[in-house]
Amino acid sequence: MKFAMAVDVKKLIEYGQLKFLKELLVEQEPATVLEMIKELPSEEILIVFRLLPKDTAAIVFTELETDEQLKLLSLFKEEKAKEIIENMDPDDRVELFDEMPANVVKKLLDYLSPEERKQTLTLLNFPEDSAGRIMTPYYLDVKANMTVERALEHIKKVGNTKETIYTLFAIDEDRKLSGVLELKDLIFSDSNTLIKELMNEDPIYVTVFQDREEVYQIMRDYDLLALPVTDSEKRLVGIVTIDDIVDVIEDEATEDIQKMAAVGVTESSYLHTSIWKLVKSRVFWLITLLVLESAVGFIIDGYSEVLQKITILAAFIPTINAMGGNTGGQISAIMIRSMAIGDVESSDMKKIFYKEMIIGIILGSILTVIMALRAFVSTQNIMIILSLSASLLIVILTSNLLGAFLPFFAKKIKIDPAVISGPLISTLMDLISMSVYFSVSTILLKNYL
Amino acid sequence: MKFAMAVDVKKLIEYGQLKFLKELLVEQEPATVLEMIKELPSEEILIVFRLLPKDTAAIVFTELETDEQLKLLSLFKEEKAKEIIENMDPDDRVELFDEMPANVVKKLLDYLSPEERKQTLTLLNFPEDSAGRIMTPYYLDVKANMTVERALEHIKKVGNTKETIYTLFAIDEDRKLSGVLELKDLIFSDSNTLIKELMNEDPIYVTVFQDREEVYQIMRDYDLLALPVTDSEKRLVGIVTIDDIVDVIEDEATEDIQKMAAVGVTESSYLHTSIWKLVKSRVFWLITLLVLESAVGFIIDGYSEVLQKITILAAFIPTINAMGGNTGGQISAIMIRSMAIGDVESSDMKKIFYKEMIIGIILGSILTVIMALRAFVSTQNIMIILSLSASLLIVILTSNLLGAFLPFFAKKIKIDPAVISGPLISTLMDLISMSVYFSVSTILLKNYL
Repeated sequence: MKFAMAVDVKKLIEYGQLKFLKELLVEQEPATVLEMIKELPSEEILIVFRLLPKDTAAIVFTELETDEQLKLLSLFKEEKAKEIIENMDPDDRVELFDEMPANVVKKLLDYLSPEERKQTLTLLNFPEDSAGRIMTPYYLDVKANMTVERALEHIKKVGNTKETIYTLFAIDEDRKLSGVLELKDLIFSDSNTLIKELMNEDPIYVTVFQDREEVYQIMRDYDLLALPVTDSEKRLVGIVTIDDIVDVIEDEATEDIQKMAAVGVTESSYLHTSIWKLVKSRVFWLITLLVLESAVGFIIDGYSEVLQKITILAAFIPTINAMGGNTGGQISAIMIRSMAIGDVESSDMKKIFYKEMIIGIILGSILTVIMALRAFVSTQNIMIILSLSASLLIVILTSNLLGAFLPFFAKKIKIDPAVISGPLISTLMDLISMSVYFSVSTILLKNYL
Repeated sequence: MKFAMAVDVKKLIEYGQLKFLKELLVEQEPATVLEMIKELPSEEILIVFRLLPKDTAAIVFTELETDEQLKLLSLFKEEKAKEIIENMDPDDRVELFDEMPANVVKKLLDYLSPEERKQTLTLLNFPEDSAGRIMTPYYLDVKANMTVERALEHIKKVGNTKETIYTLFAIDEDRKLSGVLELKDLIFSDSNTLIKELMNEDPIYVTVFQDREEVYQIMRDYDLLALPVTDSEKRLVGIVTIDDIVDVIEDEATEDIQKMAAVGVTESSYLHTSIWKLVKSRVFWLITLLVLESAVGFIIDGYSEVLQKITILAAFIPTINAMGGNTGGQISAIMIRSMAIGDVESSDMKKIFYKEMIIGIILGSILTVIMALRAFVSTQNIMIILSLSASLLIVILTSNLLGAFLPFFAKKIKIDPAVISGPLISTLMDLISMSVYFSVSTILLKNYL
């Protein structure tokens, strides 16, 4: 029975108890080592890596942030770097290489065996976010005419080097995918049964070029632990496993949330991202929004005479603007999320239109009443109250429909819908809101001007 | 070899080819049946369910939206409803029961065997979003002193009814969790090896009351296919499997995105949610935001004299407001996401403060210059340009720090940080922005008043 004990790694290193530390490290889960490493300074991390079993070292290294990986690689002795790079999973290795300067990648490729190098280069050639990028070539293949007994022997022999042995892939002489079965099918069967009797002959698969979001939707819908990836001729080239998919879902959600808040996508974690990178990820959008928003100023400036006579109108500018942005933001977030999880499609636009027309009218009516009550506190002029309420109603209706359809429009012109939401829709709505507000007011209040 | 063929299910039903349809249905994946069912009207869905093998029926039923499930249950003959409810996984059943009126739940509980009923009631007693709610009691347990051979026999005998056989759980005489091992450990070992030699004696586990978000973080960090769930005495009561976790991650991301756009959380998909429910999920926040925002009107109204004399100030109200909201929205989204994936904690607040101070100054300086240029187009009065620029700088700095810290504050007072972001922070910033803007303007422009 093991107990979780507090060990002061720094002290062990300081007192030179490296042999003892090495023995301890052999026993630890990679996640425990990772926790530990996050607290240690670079020199001590180097020592820990030197003592770690090489498998654990590769796993822990994989889990680090890219900037930490790059830093460590530059500090490692060449031999250590080689060992770690070699022991990483090909898909994780490609993710790291992706972030590196070309000359470093070139050097690191030299560390690999010819076969591993070929694999890595192949993976690097697939488009970003494609199935080809997240797959691993370490799958377990069997032949359709093997018996269960033979297959189990085969698994015992080669299974240790594979990413998973729980899903088995049957291929024919041309390496074409002919079936898929689970290890449990073998366990529950007689030892003389043939693989082809057990396998699903019509397995679900994706090609290397399919988007990773599709991969994840398929794996989720079919509850798969592993999904085969083939080339365009249906030759098996790799598999995607469920643990990679967990990362994909998380990445996609983070990407969506960042885009919806008008932040450029950053791969690494906040604390590990430099100030410069953080500024870069935000400043482009802020400038764009500032420039767009300042156009609103021209609209209002055009009505300066109206404002001079009826200054109370200025007091409600923020309210009208905010409510347009809020309504549009709500519905666009709903749509974007529904699109992301494959819940609504372009073909549903008509249904959505009717639904959101009605919803807009209900929401608009409720909010207009509240707005009228609020306005009454500041002014008892019925025409001003009327023009405020009418403006709000039009703004709510417009922003609700705009927020529902802009994401679809974005998708059509191949922009990520999430980019459209939030700040961008608010800014667009400010332009519309102010045009509506001052047009309506000028018409309804012409007797006061 | 199977081929995907187009079959007109409606026509088969119309022509009474039910036997043929039944044979076809036996061969299909649940996901295929699900696709099909989404296109069919209720009466035909009922027929399809009558023909489906009962396992497939339960799986397909599980994957439907709650409102469809309730509708179908009311249409099913009692016997069919019973069969489907009985064949659902306990955790999925609990999720369904959660959404149902109490009297329906009571009736459905009668359909279950005494043992299943007890299980279901136990699961229903755990807090929402806890590990207890998403676990299944169908795990495979072994004894530490079994040999590999005995264990494999045991798996063959009972494994078919378990949610997974790829992770095995060793328990002692008190049903306390004493170890965890993977099926592959058995496959790669000699048949006489004892389980206790193979198992991890210090397994990672959670208790029934832990939050499902923690469960998912542990499973992600340790790349687990299944995680044991124990009671407070470390007695094994269930397991959480990776496919349930995929749903949890997706749910959590959707929840975050909805909250960040000030939408109440809805469980079912957009197209299946009624207009009334959609209105309900949005109207509360819109009213709250309208009421809060209308306070901004009082601030501006207080400066009506200033506005009457320098109407150009009104033209920049939306710009100042929008930029405060955008800046705060960006940083709060970054923080909320970092908190959700366990990347930053309260203890990092000091680091974040310094980082965001600098970032705020950089962003603020850049934007202020652009603002000054823009203002110059509308007015050449240096003091007005100065007061606009100074206001924007203060607003950016404030909203950047506010956006960074409000999520932590929210967490501290046990509100979901995501609720704070987006519209709420924008509204709060509008109040601050307008106070800053008019105070600064009144001071700097006092010679013009």
